[in-house]
This record gives sequence, C-alpha cells and structure tokens, in this order.
Amino acid sequence: MNNTESGGRTELLGISNAIVDVLAHIDETFLEKIGAVRGSMTLIDEARAREIYAMMGPATEMSGGSVANSVAGFAILGGNAAYIGKVRDDQLGEIFNHDMRSLGIDIRLPRATDGAATARSHILIEDDGQRTMQTYLGACTELKLDDVTEATVGTPGIVLIEGYVYDIAEGPALASHAMQMVRANGGQVALSLSDSFCVDRHRSAFVDAVRNGVDIVIADEDEVNALFETQDFSATLDVVDTMDNLFVMTRGAKGSVIVHGEEKLVYPADTVDDVVDTTGAGDAYCAGFLFGLSRRYSLEDCARMGTRCATQVIQRVGARIDASVLDDLG
Amino acid sequence: MNNTESGGRTELLGISNAIVDVLAHIDETFLEKIGAVRGSMTLIDEARAREIYAMMGPATEMSGGSVANSVAGFAILGGNAAYIGKVRDDQLGEIFNHDMRSLGIDIRLPRATDGAATARSHILIEDDGQRTMQTYLGACTELKLDDVTEATVGTPGIVLIEGYVYDIAEGPALASHAMQMVRANGGQVALSLSDSFCVDRHRSAFVDAVRNGVDIVIADEDEVNALFETQDFSATLDVVDTMDNLFVMTRGAKGSVIVHGEEKLVYPADTVDDVVDTTGAGDAYCAGFLFGLSRRYSLEDCARMGTRCATQVIQRVGARIDASVLDDLG
Repeated sequence: MNNTESGGRTELLGISNAIVDVLAHIDETFLEKIGAVRGSMTLIDEARAREIYAMMGPATEMSGGSVANSVAGFAILGGNAAYIGKVRDDQLGEIFNHDMRSLGIDIRLPRATDGAATARSHILIEDDGQRTMQTYLGACTELKLDDVTEATVGTPGIVLIEGYVYDIAEGPALASHAMQMVRANGGQVALSLSDSFCVDRHRSAFVDAVRNGVDIVIADEDEVNALFETQDFSATLDVVDTMDNLFVMTRGAKGSVIVHGEEKLVYPADTVDDVVDTTGAGDAYCAGFLFGLSRRYSLEDCARMGTRCATQVIQRVGARIDASVLDDLG
Repeated sequence: MNNTESGGRTELLGISNAIVDVLAHIDETFLEKIGAVRGSMTLIDEARAREIYAMMGPATEMSGGSVANSVAGFAILGGNAAYIGKVRDDQLGEIFNHDMRSLGIDIRLPRATDGAATARSHILIEDDGQRTMQTYLGACTELKLDDVTEATVGTPGIVLIEGYVYDIAEGPALASHAMQMVRANGGQVALSLSDSFCVDRHRSAFVDAVRNGVDIVIADEDEVNALFETQDFSATLDVVDTMDNLFVMTRGAKGSVIVHGEEKLVYPADTVDDVVDTTGAGDAYCAGFLFGLSRRYSLEDCARMGTRCATQVIQRVGARIDASVLDDLG
C-alpha cells in the first residue's frame, strides 16, 4: 500500500488543534496540588501553563493531538494526507511541523509570525498509566475562518475535523465552512468527538453538525452516549439506528461497533496479553478505519484495519503505529 | 538521604554542554545516506543540523548531555547540585533549564539573549538499540571563560567537568580556571572523558589536566585506553598504577575498576536478565559513585552505589534513575 494508489489526490485532510505533548510522571499528590480531576483534560491559560510546568518534573516532548495523531497514522499506512492546524514560528512549532512533514503529510498553513506560542498539552502520568491533561491551546486558538480556503482545503476524499476545534472562537464557523467545501467537491466529512467533556461543551453544535453535514461520526462509547445524552450504549444504538450517518464507535476491550443505515457490525477487540499503554488507541483505530474506507474496503475490513492499528498501539509506549501493521491482512 | 545532609553546601557542580536530545528511530539506510559512522558522535553545524533533522522521522525531545545527566542523577539521589552550561532564551533552552530545575538543581547562568540557538543532539536509534549522534553545539560553543566566576562556581565539594567542554573555543581555559578555583577552596576536581574520539581530539590537554589539577578521572575502558594510548585495559592499569588520581573506570558487563594510589578495587556488574537500553549507564554510574564520595562512603560503597544506578538505567528506556534506587543499601 502506498501513495501511488491515491493517484496523487489528498485522501485525508485533518483539521485540528496542533499540539506538542509535554509528558512527565507525577506522584499521587500532584493532581491534588494543582486541583485537577484524575483522567480529565482541562484547558488552561499561559500563566497557568507556566505554573504547572514549573511544578512538573523532567519531561519529554513530542508532537501530539488526537486528530493529528490519526492523520500521522493514516500517512504511516501509506495514505496521502494533509493537515490544517495553527502553530507559531517557535521551536515547538518547528517540532510539530517537522514530525508531520517527516511522514509525508502536506502542511497547509504557514507558521504564524506573531500571536500566542505553539500549543502544548502537559500530560501528567501516574504510576498506573492514568493520564491527566492540562492543555494550553496557544496558537491553536488563532486558527481562523480565513485559514480555511479553497487553496488550503483543496479537494480531499475525507476531511476529519476534531471536536476540540469547537473550543476555538472561530472553530464552529471554520468547521462548517470546511464541511461545505469538501462536500461540494464530492468528499466526505468525518467528525471526531474528542472527549465526553468536549461533547458536553458543544452538544448542540455537534448534534446539529451530525444532522446536517457530517457523514462519519468517530467516537468512543462515552462520547457518543454524551452526544445523545443516553444512559447506556444500547440506548445510544437505538438513537443511532434512526440516523443515516456512518457511526464508527470504539468500546475499548469490548471492540467496536459500526452502524451505517441498515448495516450494523459488531467487531471484537483482539486479545492482548500485555496492555502497555492504551493512549492513542482510538486515534490509531481512526487512522486504520479511514485508510480502509479511503481505499474502498468493506466496513468489516475497515473495522479489521482499525482494530489492528489499535492493537499494536496498546502494546507499546507512545501512540505511533508501524508502516507494516496491516501487512498480513488480505 | 536528602539535601539537609549537605548542610546547604553545593556538593556537586557540573560544567558541561547543555544539550536537548532529539531522538528518532532510523532504518538501516539512514546512516549511509548522511555519511555517518555507526555508533559515533559527530559535531555538526547548524545548516547540517537542519538538513539531518529534515531527513529524520518523527522525534522525541528531552534534556540530555552526559554530565548534565550525571548531575540530574546526583540530584535525584538527594544530592545538592548546581550546573553551569549555556543555553539560549528559546524554547529548547527553557526545556533544558526546566528539567534541571525541577530536580532542585541550581542553574548558575542566565539564558543567553542572543547568539546561537540551544544545542541539540540528533540521536539516531536503530532497531537493535545502537545509537549514532549528530550534535549541533549551538549556544554551548558560547560558554566563555567569563562565565566561570566566584559567583557562578562558588565552593562546591566536587566540580565535574565534561571532556566535551574542550571542544569549545574557551573550553580548556574555563575548565582550567574552574579547576583552580574549586581546589583553592578545598574542593575536588572530576573530569569525565566523554568518549574516545573526544579523548583523541584533546589527548595532550587531558593528560596535562590529569597530571596537574584533576583529582578524579571518570571514564569507560575505551576512553582511558585512548587517554594513555594503550593496547588494552591491563596496559592501562599499569599506567594508572603509577598515578595518584582516583580513577573510576567502567567496563560495561565486566563491571568497574577503581584505582586510587595503592588502593585497587574490581567491582562486578550486577547480573541483569533483560538489558533494555544501555544509554546513560555510565552517566548513572558516575552519579551514584560521586554521591557516595560526597557523603564520605568507602570506595567500595561508592562503586556499589554507582553500579546500582547503572543497573537500574539499563533495564529501562531513558537515562533517568529513581530516587529510591539506593534505598535498600546499608
């Protein structure tokens, strides 16, 4: 599988928060000291970011962000991918763009020459692997409607928009504009719901988008339950059954459920003896699934590809898959 | 073991290249493409650094540098440590200083407001774990004799100088000046030989320093053989036996050999079932050994502490030890 199969056309365009992850281990008292809820993602301002960074131990930096990771995975699989996200012309912005470009991803926006610094997410890791995120959005918040143009969007097969984009002032408007442009050119629109708190913040906008303009909903069980304010997954399925969108829903060890109109597929997770780190499993699944979809595989094959990518990621530290992850699939 | 045992006095001052590591995995063709020798450390200029970075895949950034890692380990063990090294007021410089300060290390120089960018070492990792380094020294090269003053040096118990400092224009002069100041105040001088190529570059200066002003020589087998231009380690020991310095020599799986005048100690390595990554083993050994020495332990105890730290580091990815690594030692 390689780029030549795409005929040069951009198969996947990601629009999301461009973030550098700052990872550090913490002890059991740290979250209490900063007043953070275990396992949550909190948006913080620059002063707070400096405060938390000063309290953190030695860290490791790497490019991150949920949809950016999915786009990276898609490119690693051999897909032709492009990316819209805002970074500054600082060293963290250079790191982010380098890491994406090194995978062959076409970066569509220049680095900002003024404004806020490149975004960073302080990822606080406890001994049991639980992660709590404190994210300074910085330059991401300056992604504008004007950044979404015919030149930057082009004619991708799929545009994948991150739910977190709705936290940006012009985010809902630019997401809506990008959706219209891509659909007008015959492409599909995928929305990743990001996290259940994000869904709570933007429920009505998300529901509206899903009813008008989104073809593919990418979500885990909590997120899709939050979207429809249902008590459990079976109640969610009742709602989903009434809709036309393609729903791609991951459920951790319970596998994934794909629903598209009449078609419904329950796909089991692979058995894994040693789960090392579940971070990035959903993003990897998304990468594999959308890669299959772009290459016109059946939904079952897409689910198999997504599952295979997720299985590899949870058996290693870090969110990256190998180019060979799908090699032995038919 | 904690800072209060130091009575507030700086026990260890490190003077070295302040470097951020940029780590990426490479395939078997990469080194040939850039014309690098497997396992070597090559100094490169900024243009070449940009070229190599552009060719590298997605990377991970973390603060690094050999002596800086030893100082970090010393601080993690509870030692009172300080550091002299030059970074710019850029984001990588902020990362470096943050990581050191977060361990309680007293950073003695302000970040430079002009000149070259903070140094980075592109660490190219092959599938078998072999590492090849391409290092852009940047701001490190602007460490000056004037940076070594009574105010910045103070009165440390031990000053640990990195051999690589001799690659800097004013390095030999500032190293010599620091050595004199520390000895004049009753402190000891330790020189880490860095790597055998570095020894080749600066042999006469190192031999001169070891004969006039260095109390403790920290080296691995290859480095000390290179220093004395001997064919093998037993020939090196014949030379070392004639000298008064304390020689702390590591030999990988063969353990370590400590020689101080009439005293000679051969200390075995711990048996390790699963060596994950030997990177940083020597730096960790140095941290443990010098911590023991600062606290007036016997040379055998110092060797035990160094060995214990190295044993922990080779069983994990990354060069950092835990604060508890020496907990069950007597």
